[in-house]
Amino acid sequence: MKRTVFFISDGTGLTAEALGNSLLAQFEKIEFERVTVPYVDDQERAEALVDRINKASREDGMRPLVFDTIVKKDIRAIISEADGFMVDIFGTFLDPLEQELQASSSYTVGKSHSINNEGNYEKRIHAVNFALDNDDGARTRHYDEADLILVGASRSGKTPTCLYLALQYGVKAANYPITEDDLDDQQLPEVLRSHREKIFGLTIDPERLAVIRNERRPNSRYSSIKQCMHEVEEIETMYRRERIPFMNTTAYSVEEISTRIMVSTGLKRLR
Amino acid sequence: MKRTVFFISDGTGLTAEALGNSLLAQFEKIEFERVTVPYVDDQERAEALVDRINKASREDGMRPLVFDTIVKKDIRAIISEADGFMVDIFGTFLDPLEQELQASSSYTVGKSHSINNEGNYEKRIHAVNFALDNDDGARTRHYDEADLILVGASRSGKTPTCLYLALQYGVKAANYPITEDDLDDQQLPEVLRSHREKIFGLTIDPERLAVIRNERRPNSRYSSIKQCMHEVEEIETMYRRERIPFMNTTAYSVEEISTRIMVSTGLKRLR
Repeated sequence: MKRTVFFISDGTGLTAEALGNSLLAQFEKIEFERVTVPYVDDQERAEALVDRINKASREDGMRPLVFDTIVKKDIRAIISEADGFMVDIFGTFLDPLEQELQASSSYTVGKSHSINNEGNYEKRIHAVNFALDNDDGARTRHYDEADLILVGASRSGKTPTCLYLALQYGVKAANYPITEDDLDDQQLPEVLRSHREKIFGLTIDPERLAVIRNERRPNSRYSSIKQCMHEVEEIETMYRRERIPFMNTTAYSVEEISTRIMVSTGLKRLR
Repeated sequence: MKRTVFFISDGTGLTAEALGNSLLAQFEKIEFERVTVPYVDDQERAEALVDRINKASREDGMRPLVFDTIVKKDIRAIISEADGFMVDIFGTFLDPLEQELQASSSYTVGKSHSINNEGNYEKRIHAVNFALDNDDGARTRHYDEADLILVGASRSGKTPTCLYLALQYGVKAANYPITEDDLDDQQLPEVLRSHREKIFGLTIDPERLAVIRNERRPNSRYSSIKQCMHEVEEIETMYRRERIPFMNTTAYSVEEISTRIMVSTGLKRLR
């Protein structure tokens, strides 16, 4: 028995999905069929959506949940006619916010992920390019410009984390893979020493690292559990000796790793 | 006169930020000072946060707005003592959802961006690696595996869009830059012809393209408005001749471009 859930928006639908999914995560035993419908921004689309919600209601034998971040009142009014359980986000919070702020809502559609949102968009795209140009120790001469330099063993999660930090927060993050050559003297690699205050270390359980590496280069020395254990141990020893802040990424998503790095380093979120 | 806004969470804070910012975007004339506090997951942190909210209230001379996605009732109870205007997302929606679903909330903390969320996490990370390996036409032999191949002029927004599609939706997106050599015969480049159904085109206003290219290679032929106009015109002609679906990225963010591509191609969102 599944229950259909609609995330609907006059913009990208990202906010409706984020909010809806965080609420649905509290009901682990129920199976949900998720449908996102972005850009519901005129009467025709709203009416087509009402038909779709009503159809799901008939098919499931119960009314769908509808998470709605539509800004315009007239569009919301059409949607509210559907046979769904409405979680009407703007309808719920906008009136009390207007009162508290003593200001009228501008009812501007689709602002929250737009290019004009606080002029930070270009900074984010620059940060993505920076992360790509300074990935995997490829270039170290731009480290002066970096907000952050992630270090760690190959495949410990540096690159996806740098890209997420760039896209979400506009943080310019370079990354440097620590290899066996770097580990001979248990010291921070020379190229990193003058940037000590920007360095954050990643580590990972050797068993997990071996699984990830095996996807890349199956049955190699690089992927062997022995090699992974050796590298991880040496790298963690170096972090401790050099007092580099670090975290174990094994149990965390890029969103969680990024957020913990932001908290630990005190870097400021862009939006 | 600024107004302080807190986004607080026992997880990453991403949902509180997304919801809060989409509501605040409706009040364009008010200047907000945004503070995100993630991982408020015990009594001590909750009490420290109450002090911080109260301090902001005294300094601003008015109470801050507090967007709160904290799951646990006892932590929320502490926060609600603060001198803030509370937008209590779980408090508002969880009770009615429990009734509608005839189920109890599990009050599980920090689920919505966790690695265990529906087993889709690995797919997203694989998609990021795929995007990096198949960036900028570097390799075309994996196009069979791609969900999508973005094409367009150099610097029209392909790479950041591919990375966003991967990180957010787990879509495996390759990209192929259309160069002058490809444009001689106004046809789709040969390497793309057998993947026609996966191709989506990007275009961009030549003026904007020239600005972006000038940041990369100032005062070059590549960055000249003449060259940008020529390439864009030829590429759009090719898209039309070959009936490639395409969009102009000039006014849109990566979130918006990605969402429009998902709608246009019918690709399924992962979460």
